[in-house]
Amino acid sequence: MSSQTLTTAGDRVDGRTPDQLREVRITRGWIEQAEGSALIEFGRTRVLCTASFTEGVPRWKQGSGSGWVTAEYAMLPRATNTRSPRESVKGKIGGRTHEISRLIGRSLRAVIDLDALGENTIQLDCDVLQADGGTRTAAITGAYVALADAITWAKRHTSLPAAKEVLTDTVSAISVGIVDGRPLLDLEYREDVAADTDMNVVVTGSGGFVEVQGTAEGVPFDRSELGTLLDLATTGCARLAGIQRDALAAQA
Amino acid sequence: MSSQTLTTAGDRVDGRTPDQLREVRITRGWIEQAEGSALIEFGRTRVLCTASFTEGVPRWKQGSGSGWVTAEYAMLPRATNTRSPRESVKGKIGGRTHEISRLIGRSLRAVIDLDALGENTIQLDCDVLQADGGTRTAAITGAYVALADAITWAKRHTSLPAAKEVLTDTVSAISVGIVDGRPLLDLEYREDVAADTDMNVVVTGSGGFVEVQGTAEGVPFDRSELGTLLDLATTGCARLAGIQRDALAAQA
Amino acid sequence: MSSQTLTTAGDRVDGRTPDQLREVRITRGWIEQAEGSALIEFGRTRVLCTASFTEGVPRWKQGSGSGWVTAEYAMLPRATNTRSPRESVKGKIGGRTHEISRLIGRSLRAVIDLDALGENTIQLDCDVLQADGGTRTAAITGAYVALADAITWAKRHTSLPAAKEVLTDTVSAISVGIVDGRPLLDLEYREDVAADTDMNVVVTGSGGFVEVQGTAEGVPFDRSELGTLLDLATTGCARLAGIQRDALAAQA
Amino acid sequence: MSSQTLTTAGDRVDGRTPDQLREVRITRGWIEQAEGSALIEFGRTRVLCTASFTEGVPRWKQGSGSGWVTAEYAMLPRATNTRSPRESVKGKIGGRTHEISRLIGRSLRAVIDLDALGENTIQLDCDVLQADGGTRTAAITGAYVALADAITWAKRHTSLPAAKEVLTDTVSAISVGIVDGRPLLDLEYREDVAADTDMNVVVTGSGGFVEVQGTAEGVPFDRSELGTLLDLATTGCARLAGIQRDALAAQA
Amino acid sequence: MSSQTLTTAGDRVDGRTPDQLREVRITRGWIEQAEGSALIEFGRTRVLCTASFTEGVPRWKQGSGSGWVTAEYAMLPRATNTRSPRESVKGKIGGRTHEISRLIGRSLRAVIDLDALGENTIQLDCDVLQADGGTRTAAITGAYVALADAITWAKRHTSLPAAKEVLTDTVSAISVGIVDGRPLLDLEYREDVAADTDMNVVVTGSGGFVEVQGTAEGVPFDRSELGTLLDLATTGCARLAGIQRDALAAQA
Amino acid sequence: MSSQTLTTAGDRVDGRTPDQLREVRITRGWIEQAEGSALIEFGRTRVLCTASFTEGVPRWKQGSGSGWVTAEYAMLPRATNTRSPRESVKGKIGGRTHEISRLIGRSLRAVIDLDALGENTIQLDCDVLQADGGTRTAAITGAYVALADAITWAKRHTSLPAAKEVLTDTVSAISVGIVDGRPLLDLEYREDVAADTDMNVVVTGSGGFVEVQGTAEGVPFDRSELGTLLDLATTGCARLAGIQRDALAAQA
Repeated sequence: MSSQTLTTAGDRVDGRTPDQLREVRITRGWIEQAEGSALIEFGRTRVLCTASFTEGVPRWKQGSGSGWVTAEYAMLPRATNTRSPRESVKGKIGGRTHEISRLIGRSLRAVIDLDALGENTIQLDCDVLQADGGTRTAAITGAYVALADAITWAKRHTSLPAAKEVLTDTVSAISVGIVDGRPLLDLEYREDVAADTDMNVVVTGSGGFVEVQGTAEGVPFDRSELGTLLDLATTGCARLAGIQRDALAAQA
Repeated sequence: MSSQTLTTAGDRVDGRTPDQLREVRITRGWIEQAEGSALIEFGRTRVLCTASFTEGVPRWKQGSGSGWVTAEYAMLPRATNTRSPRESVKGKIGGRTHEISRLIGRSLRAVIDLDALGENTIQLDCDVLQADGGTRTAAITGAYVALADAITWAKRHTSLPAAKEVLTDTVSAISVGIVDGRPLLDLEYREDVAADTDMNVVVTGSGGFVEVQGTAEGVPFDRSELGTLLDLATTGCARLAGIQRDALAAQA
Repeated sequence: MSSQTLTTAGDRVDGRTPDQLREVRITRGWIEQAEGSALIEFGRTRVLCTASFTEGVPRWKQGSGSGWVTAEYAMLPRATNTRSPRESVKGKIGGRTHEISRLIGRSLRAVIDLDALGENTIQLDCDVLQADGGTRTAAITGAYVALADAITWAKRHTSLPAAKEVLTDTVSAISVGIVDGRPLLDLEYREDVAADTDMNVVVTGSGGFVEVQGTAEGVPFDRSELGTLLDLATTGCARLAGIQRDALAAQA
Repeated sequence: MSSQTLTTAGDRVDGRTPDQLREVRITRGWIEQAEGSALIEFGRTRVLCTASFTEGVPRWKQGSGSGWVTAEYAMLPRATNTRSPRESVKGKIGGRTHEISRLIGRSLRAVIDLDALGENTIQLDCDVLQADGGTRTAAITGAYVALADAITWAKRHTSLPAAKEVLTDTVSAISVGIVDGRPLLDLEYREDVAADTDMNVVVTGSGGFVEVQGTAEGVPFDRSELGTLLDLATTGCARLAGIQRDALAAQA
Repeated sequence: MSSQTLTTAGDRVDGRTPDQLREVRITRGWIEQAEGSALIEFGRTRVLCTASFTEGVPRWKQGSGSGWVTAEYAMLPRATNTRSPRESVKGKIGGRTHEISRLIGRSLRAVIDLDALGENTIQLDCDVLQADGGTRTAAITGAYVALADAITWAKRHTSLPAAKEVLTDTVSAISVGIVDGRPLLDLEYREDVAADTDMNVVVTGSGGFVEVQGTAEGVPFDRSELGTLLDLATTGCARLAGIQRDALAAQA
Repeated sequence: MSSQTLTTAGDRVDGRTPDQLREVRITRGWIEQAEGSALIEFGRTRVLCTASFTEGVPRWKQGSGSGWVTAEYAMLPRATNTRSPRESVKGKIGGRTHEISRLIGRSLRAVIDLDALGENTIQLDCDVLQADGGTRTAAITGAYVALADAITWAKRHTSLPAAKEVLTDTVSAISVGIVDGRPLLDLEYREDVAADTDMNVVVTGSGGFVEVQGTAEGVPFDRSELGTLLDLATTGCARLAGIQRDALAAQA
């Protein structure tokens, strides 16, 4: 388990300073039967990420010599303050779920060399056990750790060559937003619902942007605000990259 | 957290004796936002149970003065050794899921006085995070703890009178089976797939049967075998009732 | 057509004694185009059972040398006192339907040697035309007759060797229950809704249990009640086995 | 039970003459629990029709003072020579089923005075138990009998005034077609698949057309052929009206 | 673009005479990326028809040497006066949509030699952009033009031999009806809802009937009325055949 | 109809310069029956936008005094180079459709004062008739025009006061991207598939950002590239705002 606890002396709802992350904890191998898994916690937000490695690829990639990585995101019905109906019971997946699943898949594919993976598939599953803001960015950050472990597993147990550089970089994500005119890092739920602008940023370990998704919930934002938010996110993701590194360095 | 660790000196696949439970652990309040919750573990089997209390009842019970308790069971896609597709993605719920959800609902309703509950609804959700046999019986045993906590919560935070005896008894469940001719208590997955007869038994704290579901997977079973299995199950459920009692006695 | 009419001198709602079956009638070949079929009636309960024989097996059994038997149960919308919406119109199958379909399939597979069947599939369909209690047990009892006829058909019209012993035993099923403190055999609808304990028992011709599913609707039941119910069911199934034998002995 | 048996001296596949109906049998009250029901048989074609009377109307008719009649048609999976998958299992209703359900509903509404029915609903269900051509026209003809019985029932058991003329006429339907250049009445399955033109005609007791649906399966048809087919259908429906009258005249 | 504008001196709601078509306009190639397409307008009714040519046939026709033509009809949500929910959002296709899709497919298959088409598939899509009555008949008439263009395209760009006579005739369709006792050609929406009898007729270029679908909405119709309606429809379709011919003669 | 035609002297696939829009055409009132509608074309991309005004709001807003605006996006099956299956036939909506529908809804809500709208609902439908890149941004730009017309309509025909300022600003959207290292405005399909970074930007008439969604398809992008893309998008949206203004100034 790798975590980061910060003393909190700020004036945010939970006492943090504007540029402070919540306590982040990554527990590798939480699901013993999966090729890779991580329970990631950002404060009360708790997401279980698993990576399932299977040999072979979907029909449309067969014969390409190249692999595939895809992701599904979901929330347990009582992850939220009031219970939401199960999507399996409703018989269909909602737009928000679809949107986030696609975002996670794109983000992880940005740091994997699918040709180096060979004709193998890694399915990422990110299930939110408890939600308190920032579930999609926690999912991306945790899924990276599960993905890395699944690749390590595959190098030991399948024909994937141990020397292959399958991962081209690391990747993490964080939410930022403007609340009461103040740019804040890593919004918890109470801040999220009060935010005028909400932005999710996905950044590689070397600092490149993979996704920037900014939405004005109230008044539109300008170039200057956008710049400040990107600065906050870049710094936050750099810290997350460190936490990921520490987690993966520890003995699983 | 309440648990029971037993030394294991038997000859079963994991060293247990025929009438020995796996280590059982119950962690109350694992989901901080739910009115009641419990993470229950039987060895590697891990089920997250939440109880959501809401005022009001479904339309068909309105005006009856009586409440309702219902349950949904589901499995995360990578709870099992190989990944299963999500039911939300398939757009429909499978027969096994339906069957178990109904079993859990019936079992818990057997120990609740719906009239005493008043026009309130408790929704139980049992989500299997990791599966190693016995998930439905673990779900029932854990759901009882979550249910009890939700009722305690409701007595403090709603108009449900504190003096009402809403729960009429406790309830727990265990699987038993005949493997290689030997009756065994609390089958783990490797034993489960090898069993000739598989039985799930739901028992109240005072020792009455709520459900007896025995299935011959291979050769049919006779009255004598049925008797032995019921003996094992009765003893096992008595121990589980003790673990539930300890868990609920501890400060949540 | 094979039937059993009993004079009724008891004090149950329809004049039966506690251990008396309703009049049971089995009409073989009711669907002329099916490989096997039986209309089975337990009093007003009327279930149409067909067995469809096809060469080949589902993909997951191909190359195994072994066959497959599966079942689907359904109810016509006006089989019941008040009309129920069609599951096809609702777009999904309910939990009760799923549960019963699975029970029928398991019960029939218990008396068939899938290896002797070879790579052939038998699909059983049990459609309730009119429901007055005991539809699932009538379905199992009638499906056995349809299954036997389909196998006879296959021995004449396909490459299935006539000398193969495909069926290892016969199988029938009956419901029993405790109503107003009295154990009763073969509950009709009015008794079923009043029962404290309801049990469905599936028994082979040689008297072994295939399924025992007991549910306390009201107060839990004890070992002694369970024993009495199993005695009743065993006797009832023995009589049903005789009715099946007579039906199959007659010229179709 | 009302039926019509004709000696068959023609040269059609089953020995009928071109303008001869198959043996038609109507068994009223086949489902004892429904307000109206009829098992109708045209040779081997066997359709179970029920009429369910309920007080009240769908939301969009509430307050109109007028009633509603609607119909659903379905086929059991083994009604046909080879088994078809259930629409409930597929999760959706096929185009053919939709089309026929709508046709039945329109046909019956043509002979009912919805204002005289008052704010009551009659749901017709036509389930094909065995199919050998002409199932939709048999369904309409049988549904009329079930409908008439349901109205009689309602006049006795609900506030529907006994003196109200709710039915304005009778209605029946028959298929006709051109097979090998010959116009034929009441096609059985083998004739149906060989037909160049296939026509379903719905006619009131007083001889008016409610529906004429002609389809060229092979070569287009001309005005003269259309005329001959309408003559055949008109005669056939007149005979069916007589069979309906006889059935309804008998004591149910 | 090919169109027909008629001076309107009649007394119908839009000034037409009883046997007058609305202005009909056919714009070929409205979708530049499809193998064949036509925007067809009957007054305010506007249907976009595309024909998609693909090599190969569905599994059930593979190896037959013969091709396949199928059609799907749909309406944009705001094609009508008040918005209708999308069928994709509802998750199922309604009966009316199914019925019309099947009608269009049958109508077009009536004039195509599937053997001459070879193992190729043409998918017709008819999407109603604006509806003012007669959408299904406009769809058939426009789909013929798109189909003809797709075949021309295939003769140039695939292995389909240029000399093959794939189309055996032309086909068009029109609605007719009796409004206030008067037979009228080409009903617009206001006439359609007022009609006692509504009939859709599909006619080949050489004058043969492919489909005749007459429905009494109010009082049944008799043979004489049927005859008058068929006369009107035959004349109307002859004019449509001319408009189709002109459209196809023009340079696309 | 309002349009903008630019001479094209650049070196892009269609001859445009990097900062040049395709020809943009807006045809108001294309659907005569809708309260607001616009056919918008960006080169070959053609999207039909309608705005349906209805009095009343969804249940969850009733009594709030505030209105609601929502949007649905869809594509005709043959809008693309090869045909895609209909979502209505598949029975579910894909993730991409969901994602874009949500984006359109958020973008339009950003410029509407829901309190000023009162308890009224405006449903936007954006149906892609032909797709050649940039369909979601064309949809937003066209939906604004349809929305504005629907509000004008409502001020004339409903109780919405003519003096209310319901729209707080205008809104338009454009795609930008980096292709072969060059930042380009308004990507057509061939450019879109070749882009390393793809960004959709939604901007108000007064220049504020409503949405910024940038995705690295290949290599991650840096702050400098992000800046250049935002400059391009800001300029492009300013031009679109002018085209919208001209379109709305013209007599509808």
